[in-house]
Amino acid sequence: MTLSKEQFEARLRQIGAERYHDKHPFHHLLHSGGCTPDQVRAWVINRFYYQSRIPMKDAAFMSRVDDPALRRAWRSRIEDHDGTAENEGGIERWLRLAEAVGLDRDYVASAEGVMPATKFAVDAYVRFVRDETLLEAVAASLTELFAPKIHAQRIEGLLANYAFADDSSLAYFKNRLKEAPKDVAFGLAWVLDKADTQEKQDAAAKALIFKTDVLWSQLDALHAAYVDPARIPPGAWQPGTFLAQNVAAAS
Amino acid sequence: MTLSKEQFEARLRQIGAERYHDKHPFHHLLHSGGCTPDQVRAWVINRFYYQSRIPMKDAAFMSRVDDPALRRAWRSRIEDHDGTAENEGGIERWLRLAEAVGLDRDYVASAEGVMPATKFAVDAYVRFVRDETLLEAVAASLTELFAPKIHAQRIEGLLANYAFADDSSLAYFKNRLKEAPKDVAFGLAWVLDKADTQEKQDAAAKALIFKTDVLWSQLDALHAAYVDPARIPPGAWQPGTFLAQNVAAAS
Repeated sequence: MTLSKEQFEARLRQIGAERYHDKHPFHHLLHSGGCTPDQVRAWVINRFYYQSRIPMKDAAFMSRVDDPALRRAWRSRIEDHDGTAENEGGIERWLRLAEAVGLDRDYVASAEGVMPATKFAVDAYVRFVRDETLLEAVAASLTELFAPKIHAQRIEGLLANYAFADDSSLAYFKNRLKEAPKDVAFGLAWVLDKADTQEKQDAAAKALIFKTDVLWSQLDALHAAYVDPARIPPGAWQPGTFLAQNVAAAS
Repeated sequence: MTLSKEQFEARLRQIGAERYHDKHPFHHLLHSGGCTPDQVRAWVINRFYYQSRIPMKDAAFMSRVDDPALRRAWRSRIEDHDGTAENEGGIERWLRLAEAVGLDRDYVASAEGVMPATKFAVDAYVRFVRDETLLEAVAASLTELFAPKIHAQRIEGLLANYAFADDSSLAYFKNRLKEAPKDVAFGLAWVLDKADTQEKQDAAAKALIFKTDVLWSQLDALHAAYVDPARIPPGAWQPGTFLAQNVAAAS
């Protein structure tokens, strides 16, 4: 049975309520101040890989869209991450966070210490957007529906609990609070409009579940590697290494 | 500097000595009898996804090879897994193992309970073989160099420690003991022959490291989900479910 737009939106929101990664224990640990400096660093290193692939994902999407209006609406996502003359962009802001937590900026930007499990999950997302239908690609982006809450909690939790947290280091999250609602309002309206059969609604819901899996499995890998049981996979970042020079000198 | 064939083979074997998944604690747990029946089942369910994708990976490889002799040499890999008139094949043998450990065969074959992290890693391997050079694709298959040892340990350890283990349930591993050495002898000779510059040797070594990452991250995800900290990701198989009817009735 095809759901009404209101019912279908409720179905999508329910997926977030059940499976979005704000339910993962790593986020509680991070926001409550329970992470060691090295655990925060491991998060920053691995999450950078996700950030770095988002504009590639969006370019893959635009490469398949023949409607100039849709491409135009989508283009700001790439600008938000890669920057413009007036806006340093989300990737640059993430690298400022990396420096603030004491990491060598070039090392983080190289993505060398990123865990294979992180890469497998993130690359699966880029390929999903490249290979599946446009409807599924946009539906997968709708985890942004659930992001403002976690960003607000993160800003509050990091500011309260970690010395590195200030307006400069948390600029990435503050900006996402402004950017994500605009993007997701467009994406949600588009998905509700295009998913006009049960088959399409099922495909869109499945795409959103896929995306929650991409996010969840990144935190699972991070938690297992650096928190419990703290078994770091071969080749991934080792705590205490690749610190910024002033941090290395102080320790 | 380009290594001699002997030196380059030693470099490849060193990668296995350092990074092959026989070093992962899950295998020690499994082979020593330390796994609960449900932990063995979780391994069987997730590892099935890898088995099921291997012939697709090999077909992707053959689809890119214009040399009939190389395709002919490669073809037996697909036969080994998918079966022939005389040989039930590795996938069927794996499903027999699934039944022997008390799982519903159709559920395992559906791959529905497989963890997203398993799929991301395995799918990354199929895509690697589809997208990278033929040399890198063959080099990635060379983890088979290290497989006979783990299969022999597995047969011995499972037979000694688990009631389900017998000639029928372990037929998959017994057959791989015969099949893998033939495949890898061909693949190793091919890689040693084609990797005739430092650049190609580096690419082949990197491909083999990639493959060890694919295998290692599967065990990391399995261990974290079902052993320690035993946090099962949303949607993945729940212990005690989808048992074969006789097992469910007995418990």
